[in-house]
Amino acid sequence: MGSTERIGNVAKRVAKWARAGHQMVVVPSAMSGETNRLLALAKELAPAKPTADYSRELDMLAATGEQASSALLAIALQAEGLESVSYAGWQVPIRTNSAYTKARIESIDDKRVRADLANGKVVIVTGFQGMDEQGNITTLGRGGSDTSAVAVAAAMKAQECLIYTDVDGVYTTDPRVVPEARRMTNISFEEMLEMASLGSKVLQIRSVEFAGKYRVPLRVLSSFTPWDIPLEEEATSGTLITFEEDENMEQAIVSGIAFNRDEAKISVLGVPDTPGIAYQILGPIAEANIDVDVIIQNLSKDGKTDFSFTVHRNDYAKAIDLLKDQVMDNLGSKEIVGDAKICKVSIVGIGMRSHVGVASRMFRVLSEEGINIQMISTSEIKTSVVIDEKYMELAVRALHKAFDLDQVPADTIAQS
Amino acid sequence: MGSTERIGNVAKRVAKWARAGHQMVVVPSAMSGETNRLLALAKELAPAKPTADYSRELDMLAATGEQASSALLAIALQAEGLESVSYAGWQVPIRTNSAYTKARIESIDDKRVRADLANGKVVIVTGFQGMDEQGNITTLGRGGSDTSAVAVAAAMKAQECLIYTDVDGVYTTDPRVVPEARRMTNISFEEMLEMASLGSKVLQIRSVEFAGKYRVPLRVLSSFTPWDIPLEEEATSGTLITFEEDENMEQAIVSGIAFNRDEAKISVLGVPDTPGIAYQILGPIAEANIDVDVIIQNLSKDGKTDFSFTVHRNDYAKAIDLLKDQVMDNLGSKEIVGDAKICKVSIVGIGMRSHVGVASRMFRVLSEEGINIQMISTSEIKTSVVIDEKYMELAVRALHKAFDLDQVPADTIAQS
Repeated sequence: MGSTERIGNVAKRVAKWARAGHQMVVVPSAMSGETNRLLALAKELAPAKPTADYSRELDMLAATGEQASSALLAIALQAEGLESVSYAGWQVPIRTNSAYTKARIESIDDKRVRADLANGKVVIVTGFQGMDEQGNITTLGRGGSDTSAVAVAAAMKAQECLIYTDVDGVYTTDPRVVPEARRMTNISFEEMLEMASLGSKVLQIRSVEFAGKYRVPLRVLSSFTPWDIPLEEEATSGTLITFEEDENMEQAIVSGIAFNRDEAKISVLGVPDTPGIAYQILGPIAEANIDVDVIIQNLSKDGKTDFSFTVHRNDYAKAIDLLKDQVMDNLGSKEIVGDAKICKVSIVGIGMRSHVGVASRMFRVLSEEGINIQMISTSEIKTSVVIDEKYMELAVRALHKAFDLDQVPADTIAQS
Repeated sequence: MGSTERIGNVAKRVAKWARAGHQMVVVPSAMSGETNRLLALAKELAPAKPTADYSRELDMLAATGEQASSALLAIALQAEGLESVSYAGWQVPIRTNSAYTKARIESIDDKRVRADLANGKVVIVTGFQGMDEQGNITTLGRGGSDTSAVAVAAAMKAQECLIYTDVDGVYTTDPRVVPEARRMTNISFEEMLEMASLGSKVLQIRSVEFAGKYRVPLRVLSSFTPWDIPLEEEATSGTLITFEEDENMEQAIVSGIAFNRDEAKISVLGVPDTPGIAYQILGPIAEANIDVDVIIQNLSKDGKTDFSFTVHRNDYAKAIDLLKDQVMDNLGSKEIVGDAKICKVSIVGIGMRSHVGVASRMFRVLSEEGINIQMISTSEIKTSVVIDEKYMELAVRALHKAFDLDQVPADTIAQS
């Protein structure tokens, strides 16, 4: 939520739903910039000091941003003439583990909220935060308000969880790269999970996982939609993330194209092709808390092989140093080569399960554009390739067209 | 607390005490301007609407200011190398009644804090706030952080409660009016209570009352003192508010001169001098939640009398209207007159108990300056007069001199 003007508009929007007879639980985020402002204050006071663990107090601090916006929203709703009450995470309570700054929700008590709903109140539950077993305040990490909203929806067995974001839905790919990209009216939970994990930033992946675990229907819609559009229109806007592969689902084999420019590729050349080689290379990487994404081991030649993997670009230099220091000599590797100018492009679609040849069609499209594929990784509903970064837009546009994502699906046309 | 720089200095000061072997519980206020900033946001959202009661949500909102500064102070202390932990009011818990925005502390559980102190931690307890029986967040009203500090000191049976303020102690009168005003090294609790209630703004009266109830020795000292002065010097600076009338106490009959320009006088003329007249006049005033201070009923003449009282200047117009509407005709009063240009000047001193003639000496001083006394009110340790506002400085200076408050007391000279 931005200014008080935006909070006021959120209140008007919530009032519209409440007056139409819906029982509403609202989970607001902090006012924009507030979390950063608070953490910047902490940073001024605590210069980098690796031994100190400020995380408990950072959570005490950061949790105030959402508490303030929750109280303000309750006030705005009361000014609209609705009865409303706000609760901090510990008041619900939302119980989490004790992993400060990235806590996980363990349970939500719905008694207090249900009683208020039954009394006709709009309930505001403060997002992003909870309380651990010892009564300490915890926060859920960036995007935690979305996770809170989904968790509350799950606990309340809500009909639908509406997530108001700064985009108006989930697109077949990023419209800034492909102007023809279309907003999807539906997407399956599994597809959304792949899209999110592949770098589509609409929703935090943890909130999607949570929705999946508890089968909470999620609707992603725009917070910039005027609050006074008809409720029926708003209720069907955005993109619905569903759990039923029903017949009304869009029938495209590929639903979307995701891409990610945040990775870098590292290859350890000429290592012995013996059991345990992957662990010897990736063990130290994992110990240094570096996430590895795509992993490839080439066919061996003369008992030697090349081993390649991708890491986040921020970890690239650290990973190279680590391998040179701790791994290279032990394995008798002659060379470690890396490339930070790569990207990953993925096609995602639940239809890939039942359609053969989707991956090879992807490879053909890229080949026709003269794009060399450096690495390939597949799952049941997605195929990812690592290619030279400079071809990213070209690859995404070509795939978007080849898999007919520019076209409105037949069933949507029939409906309109 | 002001900027992060000031929080950092508070941390250094606390560290100095802690390293000298003191177990410390610290109750920080919000960063300066923060409470006003939050309440201004609420005001933008909730235009004046007399029927709505936003107070619960205002407390949710305002409580975040102190929680943030508490977490920041804990972080600053950790950066100083001390172990420290901060608790919101509900975590201690500090239990209050449910009078939102002006709650009263009912009890404080000291278990959690004691355990942390025993483990060598500096404990930060968030001021200004508590939790009611239903688990709602409450705040104590303006200056509530002082009250929290005193209450925590009482619960912990602290040796002394140090209140760092923007002044360096309690003065014999306001130095802006009388340049010769002296800082007192000691003042009795009863005198401090009178000084506070008469408009000396060093401490909120509720925190002084609390200190009195639980006999917590309070030291008022300056937060602007450099943090690195020797501890012994800091420990004896400011003004100590004590509960023992011991021999070392300053022996002046009058300890200080308080004054207050916030009042206005109202007189109801020509009312029948019958029982119940005071209630008939002041009943409606009390029902309108208007505080009455000095009350005078003149001698009657021909069965009629004049009835006068003072109210806060903000309530002056409302009180006059009320009397004209509801009281005047019923009582057959011919006239209601008021004067907002008055002030109250008071001499305060525990020595007045055992010395006769102190009040008449005050009246003589004022008479010698040609100042007409409009109303008089006395208690065991103070005498107040209402006079024309324009004579206020003159009266205060004359009294300050006449009661020898310009002079350093003899016992203090002997000590130095």
